[in-house]
Amino acid sequence: MNMKGKELRVGLIGHKFMGKAHSNAYRKIPMFFQPESRICLDTLCGIGEDLEETARRYGFSRFCTDWRRVVEDPKIDIVDICTPDNFHREIAVAAAGAGKHVVCEKPLALSYAEAREMTGAVTRAGVKNLCNFTYRGVPALMLARKIIKDGGIGRVLQLDMRYLQDFALSPDTPFGWRMDTVQAGPGIAGDKGAHVIDLARFLADEPVEVCGCSSLYVHERPVSGTSERKEVTTPDAVFFLINFHKGAKGVFTVSNASAGRKNALLLEIYGDRGAIRFDLERINELEVYIEKKEDALNGFRTVNVTESFHPMMYAWWPSGHVLGWEHAFVHQLYGFIRAIETDGRNESAFEDGMLAQRVIDAVGKSIVENRWIRVDTIH
Amino acid sequence: MNMKGKELRVGLIGHKFMGKAHSNAYRKIPMFFQPESRICLDTLCGIGEDLEETARRYGFSRFCTDWRRVVEDPKIDIVDICTPDNFHREIAVAAAGAGKHVVCEKPLALSYAEAREMTGAVTRAGVKNLCNFTYRGVPALMLARKIIKDGGIGRVLQLDMRYLQDFALSPDTPFGWRMDTVQAGPGIAGDKGAHVIDLARFLADEPVEVCGCSSLYVHERPVSGTSERKEVTTPDAVFFLINFHKGAKGVFTVSNASAGRKNALLLEIYGDRGAIRFDLERINELEVYIEKKEDALNGFRTVNVTESFHPMMYAWWPSGHVLGWEHAFVHQLYGFIRAIETDGRNESAFEDGMLAQRVIDAVGKSIVENRWIRVDTIH
Amino acid sequence: MNMKGKELRVGLIGHKFMGKAHSNAYRKIPMFFQPESRICLDTLCGIGEDLEETARRYGFSRFCTDWRRVVEDPKIDIVDICTPDNFHREIAVAAAGAGKHVVCEKPLALSYAEAREMTGAVTRAGVKNLCNFTYRGVPALMLARKIIKDGGIGRVLQLDMRYLQDFALSPDTPFGWRMDTVQAGPGIAGDKGAHVIDLARFLADEPVEVCGCSSLYVHERPVSGTSERKEVTTPDAVFFLINFHKGAKGVFTVSNASAGRKNALLLEIYGDRGAIRFDLERINELEVYIEKKEDALNGFRTVNVTESFHPMMYAWWPSGHVLGWEHAFVHQLYGFIRAIETDGRNESAFEDGMLAQRVIDAVGKSIVENRWIRVDTIH
Amino acid sequence: MNMKGKELRVGLIGHKFMGKAHSNAYRKIPMFFQPESRICLDTLCGIGEDLEETARRYGFSRFCTDWRRVVEDPKIDIVDICTPDNFHREIAVAAAGAGKHVVCEKPLALSYAEAREMTGAVTRAGVKNLCNFTYRGVPALMLARKIIKDGGIGRVLQLDMRYLQDFALSPDTPFGWRMDTVQAGPGIAGDKGAHVIDLARFLADEPVEVCGCSSLYVHERPVSGTSERKEVTTPDAVFFLINFHKGAKGVFTVSNASAGRKNALLLEIYGDRGAIRFDLERINELEVYIEKKEDALNGFRTVNVTESFHPMMYAWWPSGHVLGWEHAFVHQLYGFIRAIETDGRNESAFEDGMLAQRVIDAVGKSIVENRWIRVDTIH
Repeated sequence: MNMKGKELRVGLIGHKFMGKAHSNAYRKIPMFFQPESRICLDTLCGIGEDLEETARRYGFSRFCTDWRRVVEDPKIDIVDICTPDNFHREIAVAAAGAGKHVVCEKPLALSYAEAREMTGAVTRAGVKNLCNFTYRGVPALMLARKIIKDGGIGRVLQLDMRYLQDFALSPDTPFGWRMDTVQAGPGIAGDKGAHVIDLARFLADEPVEVCGCSSLYVHERPVSGTSERKEVTTPDAVFFLINFHKGAKGVFTVSNASAGRKNALLLEIYGDRGAIRFDLERINELEVYIEKKEDALNGFRTVNVTESFHPMMYAWWPSGHVLGWEHAFVHQLYGFIRAIETDGRNESAFEDGMLAQRVIDAVGKSIVENRWIRVDTIH
Repeated sequence: MNMKGKELRVGLIGHKFMGKAHSNAYRKIPMFFQPESRICLDTLCGIGEDLEETARRYGFSRFCTDWRRVVEDPKIDIVDICTPDNFHREIAVAAAGAGKHVVCEKPLALSYAEAREMTGAVTRAGVKNLCNFTYRGVPALMLARKIIKDGGIGRVLQLDMRYLQDFALSPDTPFGWRMDTVQAGPGIAGDKGAHVIDLARFLADEPVEVCGCSSLYVHERPVSGTSERKEVTTPDAVFFLINFHKGAKGVFTVSNASAGRKNALLLEIYGDRGAIRFDLERINELEVYIEKKEDALNGFRTVNVTESFHPMMYAWWPSGHVLGWEHAFVHQLYGFIRAIETDGRNESAFEDGMLAQRVIDAVGKSIVENRWIRVDTIH
Repeated sequence: MNMKGKELRVGLIGHKFMGKAHSNAYRKIPMFFQPESRICLDTLCGIGEDLEETARRYGFSRFCTDWRRVVEDPKIDIVDICTPDNFHREIAVAAAGAGKHVVCEKPLALSYAEAREMTGAVTRAGVKNLCNFTYRGVPALMLARKIIKDGGIGRVLQLDMRYLQDFALSPDTPFGWRMDTVQAGPGIAGDKGAHVIDLARFLADEPVEVCGCSSLYVHERPVSGTSERKEVTTPDAVFFLINFHKGAKGVFTVSNASAGRKNALLLEIYGDRGAIRFDLERINELEVYIEKKEDALNGFRTVNVTESFHPMMYAWWPSGHVLGWEHAFVHQLYGFIRAIETDGRNESAFEDGMLAQRVIDAVGKSIVENRWIRVDTIH
Repeated sequence: MNMKGKELRVGLIGHKFMGKAHSNAYRKIPMFFQPESRICLDTLCGIGEDLEETARRYGFSRFCTDWRRVVEDPKIDIVDICTPDNFHREIAVAAAGAGKHVVCEKPLALSYAEAREMTGAVTRAGVKNLCNFTYRGVPALMLARKIIKDGGIGRVLQLDMRYLQDFALSPDTPFGWRMDTVQAGPGIAGDKGAHVIDLARFLADEPVEVCGCSSLYVHERPVSGTSERKEVTTPDAVFFLINFHKGAKGVFTVSNASAGRKNALLLEIYGDRGAIRFDLERINELEVYIEKKEDALNGFRTVNVTESFHPMMYAWWPSGHVLGWEHAFVHQLYGFIRAIETDGRNESAFEDGMLAQRVIDAVGKSIVENRWIRVDTIH
């Protein structure tokens, strides 16, 4: 059969958790959506004995261990960065310099300064760029955004944003790179913090001032496959308040040690005419309250966001045939592909990554200095 | 202080579970509602060593052990029957004959024939009568009825009605009078069956034809305070289908052996434009779905039925300050008092008890004969 | 019939919302519990045309409009204070001085200084005293406390405590005394804040340091029954962080303007071996997670806290026959009566009210000074 | 890179809804699981202008419109049947005759007689066969089965099995082949009935006797893309009771007209020591109740079935990163591939399809004859 369209060749750097999620998403796009181009999984770059086997299973044509080969390869159109955070800056800047379109997992960088440099690089190069705040690709949250932007819940007053998991509760959980401030900067404040801060921006407004505190529960952890133990240098949980530009206020919690919470991104946004609630563990549902005066039927409604007229759902299955966590990646990467194809804009560009990073830095500073910090004092 | 109004003196027969619930309700009425008369707890009739103490605690002026003294006492205005089911008929007929207003707990009788006799007696005597289907007094179900009667969910198509508890699961649960067909007739088919059948009639339509089956899991039980064991002669669970007059169909389950269900009266009624759901364990909530074509916000809404504009709620607490199980009795008995005061009609008269009994008998016959039974063949 | 025991005569000051809740509770105690004494509703004190009628309906023998008559009446044993907050101090101190046992609704006072004075007065007088943090009387929360104190969820790490209603959302909601800082001091920070702070203390630990911010959405409100409007001088919502003595951290939100939330006291407490969750709108349920390593059935369980072996439930109805909001008052006041009868201790004495007040003051100061405040700097 | 293993070439017949679901599943297997063979999407067979484009998008090498070419093609190893039900028999028998391994969507056939013939054909041919009851591939239901088979809920007493959607509520919903008894036999009794009957068998026991009734709400529907209307000849809803071999009883409802239910496969199974509950709209959750005597923490626990030690979850994402509806197909087809590779057995063979079909026929007969029907009287 004839294959239509021009090719878009992907070089993916990082073959672990996020590399798998991105690969799966690229593979699903042509089956469920209608890109004009052919997306080719060209090169998988990583480190580890399982690399060749992984590349084959993910459907890549080639593999390599040096990310510079990907960046410099003239056949590659898209460089997709799924490495630990401390490599983001260097790879992204190099890729932009080489004229590649760039995808980078969140958090964009280790600091606002790095993020600013990266954003400058893609802007100067004029390449498409995506900081993959993947939850912007969840249909229920796309619907939430539409409701809020259309004024459905009125003026936003109050945010309660939490991202809770519990894998770090056990002292036996092995050391991971996110527990090392060298590789992960602010750790959970960047990792999970980036999500809740980005979603506050996506759904509501810009943070102006923050004040937080943090906790570290397990100070030392075993290193997998060794008898060593390593010191944990990032917190297990961060708690903070935010004042927003248009007057809303919010309480934020991110924790890897909230017992019983497996992947609970819990969002509640209250406006003066309604409210929305969301739990990532029930990714297909949005709870919506629209105030009507003395309406005997007022109540939060549980919307099963799987109807063909809901965001992105025309592409998938019939009503009620639910999507999973991985599908948000498909939507994000498809949006990015379309931006390339149409020379248009995609959701959650590097600039968004940068603005989230600034708030993350402000939270970090507020913890260190034990006081409120204005976001615009971060440079 | 002056006490307004004429007195209504209550003689209550049966001082156990239901006697307690009725006493509590009578005591609450004057505090939360505005009856014209003064409700006086006159005589508590029962059998047991705790009777005097109980009468004092419940606030009755007197007590006695012979129900005939209550029925014949000229000072008594209301005879309230909270005895085992096999006494209902005789007491109610005698009370009506003595010109008393009569309250009787459900199920009204042991059989349709008995229920017909009782209904005839109160009708002939021209006295007010209440067969206390207490769940008609739950605000969420009063709201459900209003929604359905107003056409809010369209034509009713499908009912899923269940009443599940689990106290009978354990073989150690002692023998109770409801397990003895002499005292309790059809047992759970009457006890819990009366509730789901009455609510089907209250909320939707008249049953026309039924087909059921039943289970008995524990055939013998210990008798409390003895070393005896006694044979159980009523089922632990009954399952049945109903065809309704206007074409709806329903599946019904009542069980005392549904593990984990403590007092789960689970109702779902689907119409051609919406649906309602209810769970007695969350007595203050009604879930309502109103179909709107391609409305992105379609979903079941959870209505907290505690606003001042919800049924009966003007009398209680502010929004969200929830009621309990006992409050439905207050609403039912207050409605009965008002019917006496205004010579009006109350919800759930003996006639409703009788019509439910006919369906219960039909279910019983369908189990014995292992076939569909038309309700109008029951005499 | 003989009435046993000595009398305890109650003088209740304040006949509105709380006065009704307390009256109802006193009336229920003898029916459901076994106090040694006879509780007599002696005098209802209040202001308003409905006072006489209300006293009659609530079952009081007398009524009056001057609280001093109640305090000075030698027949009165218990003075129960349900007035606006600005009267608490003067009445409580006078009542203690007159040797009465004293009940006072929360928040105990307008300030820590007042609360300290009140606590000193009852201590010096040696009278029983109750600051009615009514939610300590909710069986699900009594169970939560037992679980936590028994180490069921391990060391407490994280609290998410919210008390959300939405009555203040509408600009048409009339001015109430809680919106006036003269009558209500810190307003919602005291009113709802007292509950979440007390429950944090009841369930977990002592607050050490706080940092908060507040919002006022509707600056002026109509005065009922007039064409006037009045300036609102207390906030609609308060948000704060707390560091606790043993190292836990918490985020707290109290708001009267959270759309769709009717009476949502939402508590989540995470320990290093489990977690509990509670929502006052589902007052009979407690969600409990107890971590077991690699147990395929790990999950939050929804406990219907209505079994006879659950706290206080021996006194009420069979399993699953749920209680309402009002029942917590019965438990609190019964505990107080028992403390009088046995010369024992009751839950939530004035000292607890005082310690909560200190935290409330610290939150207020942190808002004004826009910084973290140590609780022990409040005098 | 070298591609390991022998090839397994798939010929897929039917390129609509189920064809898409199967194609997606085959594509995901090598990425997430470790089959020994290479699965090649060889030929897509269907009818329609979009066939070529669809084949390309799904990743098939070839396409054709005559299913006989697929069956007869010596290169094809697996024939996968996703056509309307009335083609199942002929294709499956031919495929088996040609020595192909056969996958067939449920319901296996239009009748028990057909299903028996098909089962005979694959048995005689000695080919692997899968009747794709896809919900056997849902991890939460695999866990449910394990719990039940291990005796976790004790002896099964009671089943409440429902499969509810609402697409047929609107009279504007166009005619589909499932509404035509020629193409779909018993219609919803086969389509959705097959699922609930199979899951009853999978999770509990064998049906022995059934009694049901059915409803048709919309008698005529528009034909898409025309101005025609066509008569509906299958019911919109079927309700039935089942007596099971070991004594359990169940109530079953399948409906396409249950307002607000999008894809609600609602299962409740009660045993004498516990219970499980499941809702397909929350596909990652299983609710489990395990009775412990007088345990204050008894309650249904909501298990998020996404831990690495839960069925199949080792292959996917970290805890709490939820799966969607489509993933069950991956598990079912992977099991089938493994059966081929190891000459082993897969879940839900044609025999299971046949046994479900017998019950479906019994339900149909009970509706027509308005009486209980023993399953073993169906031939």
